[in-house]
Amino acid sequence: MRSAWLLPEHIADVLPAQAQRIEALRRCLLDQAQAYGYELIIPPLLEHLDALLSGTGHELDLSTFKLVDQLSGRMLGLRADTTPQAARIDAHLLNRQGVTRLCYCGPVLHTRPTGLAATREPLQFGAELFGHDGLEADLEVAELALDCLRVAQVSQPVIDLADARVLRGVLAGVPMDAEGLQDVARALASKDAPALALLCQGLPEDTRAALLALLRLYGNGEVLPAARAVLPDRPLIRTALDELAWLGSRLQAADPGLRVAFDLSDMSGYAYYSGPRFALFAAGCSDTLARGGRYDEVGAVFGRSRPAVGFSLDLKSLSELAPAAQPRRAILALWSEDASMRAEVRRLRAAGEVVVTALPGAAAGGAAEAAAWQADRELVNRDGRWLLQPLNVADAT
Amino acid sequence: MRSAWLLPEHIADVLPAQAQRIEALRRCLLDQAQAYGYELIIPPLLEHLDALLSGTGHELDLSTFKLVDQLSGRMLGLRADTTPQAARIDAHLLNRQGVTRLCYCGPVLHTRPTGLAATREPLQFGAELFGHDGLEADLEVAELALDCLRVAQVSQPVIDLADARVLRGVLAGVPMDAEGLQDVARALASKDAPALALLCQGLPEDTRAALLALLRLYGNGEVLPAARAVLPDRPLIRTALDELAWLGSRLQAADPGLRVAFDLSDMSGYAYYSGPRFALFAAGCSDTLARGGRYDEVGAVFGRSRPAVGFSLDLKSLSELAPAAQPRRAILALWSEDASMRAEVRRLRAAGEVVVTALPGAAAGGAAEAAAWQADRELVNRDGRWLLQPLNVADAT
Repeated sequence: MRSAWLLPEHIADVLPAQAQRIEALRRCLLDQAQAYGYELIIPPLLEHLDALLSGTGHELDLSTFKLVDQLSGRMLGLRADTTPQAARIDAHLLNRQGVTRLCYCGPVLHTRPTGLAATREPLQFGAELFGHDGLEADLEVAELALDCLRVAQVSQPVIDLADARVLRGVLAGVPMDAEGLQDVARALASKDAPALALLCQGLPEDTRAALLALLRLYGNGEVLPAARAVLPDRPLIRTALDELAWLGSRLQAADPGLRVAFDLSDMSGYAYYSGPRFALFAAGCSDTLARGGRYDEVGAVFGRSRPAVGFSLDLKSLSELAPAAQPRRAILALWSEDASMRAEVRRLRAAGEVVVTALPGAAAGGAAEAAAWQADRELVNRDGRWLLQPLNVADAT
Repeated sequence: MRSAWLLPEHIADVLPAQAQRIEALRRCLLDQAQAYGYELIIPPLLEHLDALLSGTGHELDLSTFKLVDQLSGRMLGLRADTTPQAARIDAHLLNRQGVTRLCYCGPVLHTRPTGLAATREPLQFGAELFGHDGLEADLEVAELALDCLRVAQVSQPVIDLADARVLRGVLAGVPMDAEGLQDVARALASKDAPALALLCQGLPEDTRAALLALLRLYGNGEVLPAARAVLPDRPLIRTALDELAWLGSRLQAADPGLRVAFDLSDMSGYAYYSGPRFALFAAGCSDTLARGGRYDEVGAVFGRSRPAVGFSLDLKSLSELAPAAQPRRAILALWSEDASMRAEVRRLRAAGEVVVTALPGAAAGGAAEAAAWQADRELVNRDGRWLLQPLNVADAT
């Protein structure tokens, strides 16, 4: 038979060492979101395709696995992103008047990897704030995202700020179909000047100049004044630049050590962003760790348009940067029917210890069991009492 | 457009109150498994279909969603059960000589619900022990499963013991194809005497009598002596009954309050069980909360046959029995740029408090935000110092 144990490309098992890191990180991040007042939801993996893709654009459609529901004959999709589900839950199930804060953590699936080393099954953690159109909401979400990176002990986080309205402002009044717009966004996202120049042919001269200028508008604080000088002076662009300046200064004030950068051509990730957006990195590392921003239009398809801002990240990628967890030092106990010994094992476990039982016949007195958990103590009986003593590794191996 | 927010049948969102209960339970159960020395793994949702279904039988095939991999053109399956994946990881990736203990917690998907009220997306938690063929391993797994029910505060758990070898012993020497065997198992599982009688036509008289007797062999301690009297005296059956007696007596000794029952016709759940098996219930409730048992043959298809015993349960169902979590009482804070206030909020959050910010313009001073978290205190400034004071609900609403 064919190698039954080979997994599909870009799909991998997570083995104990990394799984433990992911689990620890998962708890810290959910606790962090809860401390900010974000309520946990668990949306389903499967939904009707039309609900899953409503208002989310072509890219998400292409990354979504489709299958047929045997119960209804309708087309289902496996979620490739949890954000639209959170918007649906806010709009329909909770239906609150004030601000709603939601968070989630669960797998998503992609038909194709987003990069050479990317998994097709990220473990998506995210937080979304609905019902507030002020920049204070954008700031809160960015601060929560940065706190999540701190919890994960990412050293020297960098935040790149961008705004979806800059490109819309540059292209205002220029007739362009959805496909053309997508091509331009893709050329900008990949900083592909020749492709962009080609796409600009036939566009008005000032639009072309502005589009090509966007490619160079990334860096530190000097980017915003440069953008004001180079980009057309239109209300949408002005508002975007003012809001980016406000966000950048507040983020910098909250953490003077944070590197705040701007990248006005950043168009990566999902197409639903409608205002300020951000990407988080570790210094010296080009992989995006988290993405977020404002997406006021996604909820509209569910019949209730609400301002929305949020972020998400892949816990599997983030866990690779996190330092290894301190191994839990376990206790080895030889299996016995003795009631007092079993009571002692139960007591130790309830007190937070890992007690691994060497079952009868275990090779070398449980050496393999001891090794898997790096056991450093064993439970022994001395004069009728159960005691812990240092595990003599030579004995066990 | 069609009601975009309607979910597929037997698929549901988990909203904050239940999600919080599930998350709390998830952590307790994983911690419990860790205390026993079970290492966490996170197998993928998607695998090549042949690997996913190897050695698992027809039922699992029918419950597995299939889709085509765009990268390879091969058929993939969405896991309907995590146990075979754990067996694959034990056999191939870890490949240890001694005992390996693994646990997992993640969604599985079913093409069809297993009951009228069943979800098609259970959140499967489970633990598996590989590499030990003694009853001590069966006992450990059953005890861990019972501890998980205790952690979930299930009152009066009941354990039903059965053994896959009883039916095999009864049918030994009777020619019967896989389909016939499956029909018999199904009739036994649903205690359908007329269907069973029909299927028994043409079988030898003693086999027929034994099969029909199985239907009545459920209840307390009297079942095993009755089985010895009624069932044919064959080695496979004798071993099975002896082992069930041993397991039952040990489980009873460990917890005198536990109701230990036997159900020799229990054939429900997956078809891969090969020895003792068990089902856990809450007293007075017919829904199975957890299932487990020995399945020594599953790993063989991965080229390494290892003894194996484990159990799994659905956290979503279990959480419905668990008492509601005590709500976290949050602190309401009005948004401010004041650095001392922001520092105080950060300090409170780090100390484990939930601090919800009422963003500028929040209706009624953040009444909705306060209500979602049942906020009972607010952060106020008195003479330049930040203090907590009881939240006056009349003020907020």
